[in-house]
Amino acid sequence: MSVARIAVVAGDGIGPEVIDQARKVLDAVLPGVEATEYDLGAARYHRTGEVLPDSVLDELRGHDAILLGAVGDPTVPPGVLERGLLLKLRFAFDQYVNLRPSRLFPGVVSPLAGVKPGEIDMIVVREGTEGLYAGAGGGLHRGTPAEIATEESLNTRHGVERVIRDAFARASRRPRRKVTLVHKTNVLTHAGSLWARTFDAVAAEHPDVATEYQHVDAAAMFLVTQPQRYDVIVTDNLFGDILTDIAAAVTGGIGMAASGCINPERVHPSMFEPVHGSAPDIAGKGVADPAAAVLSVSLLLDHLGHADAAHRVAEAVAAELAGRTSGTQLRTAEVGDRLAAGAVG
Amino acid sequence: MSVARIAVVAGDGIGPEVIDQARKVLDAVLPGVEATEYDLGAARYHRTGEVLPDSVLDELRGHDAILLGAVGDPTVPPGVLERGLLLKLRFAFDQYVNLRPSRLFPGVVSPLAGVKPGEIDMIVVREGTEGLYAGAGGGLHRGTPAEIATEESLNTRHGVERVIRDAFARASRRPRRKVTLVHKTNVLTHAGSLWARTFDAVAAEHPDVATEYQHVDAAAMFLVTQPQRYDVIVTDNLFGDILTDIAAAVTGGIGMAASGCINPERVHPSMFEPVHGSAPDIAGKGVADPAAAVLSVSLLLDHLGHADAAHRVAEAVAAELAGRTSGTQLRTAEVGDRLAAGAVG
Ligand SMILES: CC(C)[C@H](C(=O)O)[C@@H](O)C(=O)O
Ligand SMILES: CC(C)[C@H](C(=O)O)[C@@H](O)C(=O)O
Repeated sequence: MSVARIAVVAGDGIGPEVIDQARKVLDAVLPGVEATEYDLGAARYHRTGEVLPDSVLDELRGHDAILLGAVGDPTVPPGVLERGLLLKLRFAFDQYVNLRPSRLFPGVVSPLAGVKPGEIDMIVVREGTEGLYAGAGGGLHRGTPAEIATEESLNTRHGVERVIRDAFARASRRPRRKVTLVHKTNVLTHAGSLWARTFDAVAAEHPDVATEYQHVDAAAMFLVTQPQRYDVIVTDNLFGDILTDIAAAVTGGIGMAASGCINPERVHPSMFEPVHGSAPDIAGKGVADPAAAVLSVSLLLDHLGHADAAHRVAEAVAAELAGRTSGTQLRTAEVGDRLAAGAVG
Repeated sequence: MSVARIAVVAGDGIGPEVIDQARKVLDAVLPGVEATEYDLGAARYHRTGEVLPDSVLDELRGHDAILLGAVGDPTVPPGVLERGLLLKLRFAFDQYVNLRPSRLFPGVVSPLAGVKPGEIDMIVVREGTEGLYAGAGGGLHRGTPAEIATEESLNTRHGVERVIRDAFARASRRPRRKVTLVHKTNVLTHAGSLWARTFDAVAAEHPDVATEYQHVDAAAMFLVTQPQRYDVIVTDNLFGDILTDIAAAVTGGIGMAASGCINPERVHPSMFEPVHGSAPDIAGKGVADPAAAVLSVSLLLDHLGHADAAHRVAEAVAAELAGRTSGTQLRTAEVGDRLAAGAVG
């Protein structure tokens, strides 16, 4: 029996290059993984017109986790791969915790003046299956002066409570034990009230966890002016999308950021992927940085219960970043080799 | 006959202090303004339970513009003053252009490393009367496990087109002539498509204006990593709320930011206000910075057709900021005196 059955979706552009390194590292720290490759993304879409056939969705269901590189290409119309593949998987596999850690590693330059490595260390627990991502929009009179278009944010107590519980559970295991709820309760009064009341109820069960609330506009600002203040942020799907990119920006860019779309109960497979895109401009050159893909492997390992291995992988990335000298062109495969060796070491 | 009839809502906390300075400057550069004070905000709400009586709304309607300090206080429940006063005015007076300039003035420290004064100079044209701010939300089964809450984003061709036209008109008058549309077309496909198609149609009428499109998450990131790239950003109500706070953060904070809620046709009064809040912690001490309130006067003057006076006020603020020595406690009234003298000067 294999230690874990992983579906690998290398995807487009630099996806395959960084996924090669991610698998090197995964195989090194957890020998015996059974990996199956799935060809999905822009290339398959252009070749066959298919985005995610039901048969593939069913096959993915049989895995413990999915490791994804990057999908997409400027030639695919907006929404096709996002709605048809990425969001479809998040919803089909009930990946309600969209986990995005942001840590300023030594050796990484932040665009912020006066922020030192180690000072920024937060995770954003972004809701992954509700809100404006529900696809509940519509329109009338398209192409005429009378056109209207709507987008609806759908929020359930069920969905809001479980992700807030997850955030508090994660905060309880972190040294600072603090959760910040981000919403826009002063304008989105209905959803905001549901989020705020649910947050307060869960907080009451965790007297050991400090809490605060911020409007999304204020949080966007404080992520720039005081990112050190955050430990765990919990927020809705769209706010989380925006805030995690700011958090990534202040810790070295989305090129460095890992993410997990997690079904915490492991009823369905969770998915782990670097936040960066397929970067067609540098694809095939062997110069893409696999750090974010390998950090995603760390999240995958942690989710599957291999906390030790997860930690070693993250520390190998930290050591690699600390040792980089600016101006030197990195080679994707060499970085992968070093990370694999370091994580085992 | 007065040169302009201005309704003044000084509001709460530091509102009255900064508005005193704003009026000093306004009177200095445009003698003969007829100003009428209206008592609105948290204080009135606590005293009388009223937020914005219809009779006051009618009186405000008779003015050329509204100058607002700050309203709000932690003791007022979220949404009461926002929905009942600020948003009510934006909607009642069809203030569909929510204008927020962000400029890094010499003398102001940006939290970003390696950004020099003068390099950041953008305006965000935020839609002000549609989107998720429409108040089209609801809920069911409140307080039970079955609770749901919704928020709906309403977008019309009418509303989207007029604000995009305004953005292009403003870009045409600026040296760089560039408009960036920000939305989330890959997820909010209905509203995103309306915005993108309308943008393309208006862009086709302005071959002299450069255009680009960015997803809101990418724009949030680039505002931190490359704020220099922006000239005019046009976006929806909620995205604009978030992006303008990031833009303010990288140019010295919301303490420095001015805004106008504008009805460009002047059918209804427009409203000008600093972005900062009522700051109850420093209220009454005479130490609040009136720069943002005075910059709002500059926007007001420009809107009423006094471009020269508007320019002089902005330059007086620039000179004031350039002359500040860090560590010295500013005095609100002294700054106001200097700005008034400088703007006339
Ligand atoms: C590609 C897109 C659908 C996605 C999102 O909006 O969630 C991306 O921005 C992300 O953050 O994973
Ligand atoms: C106070 C609030 C209603 C308002 C908004 O969300 O528009 C504020 O954040 C702003 O940006 O003017």
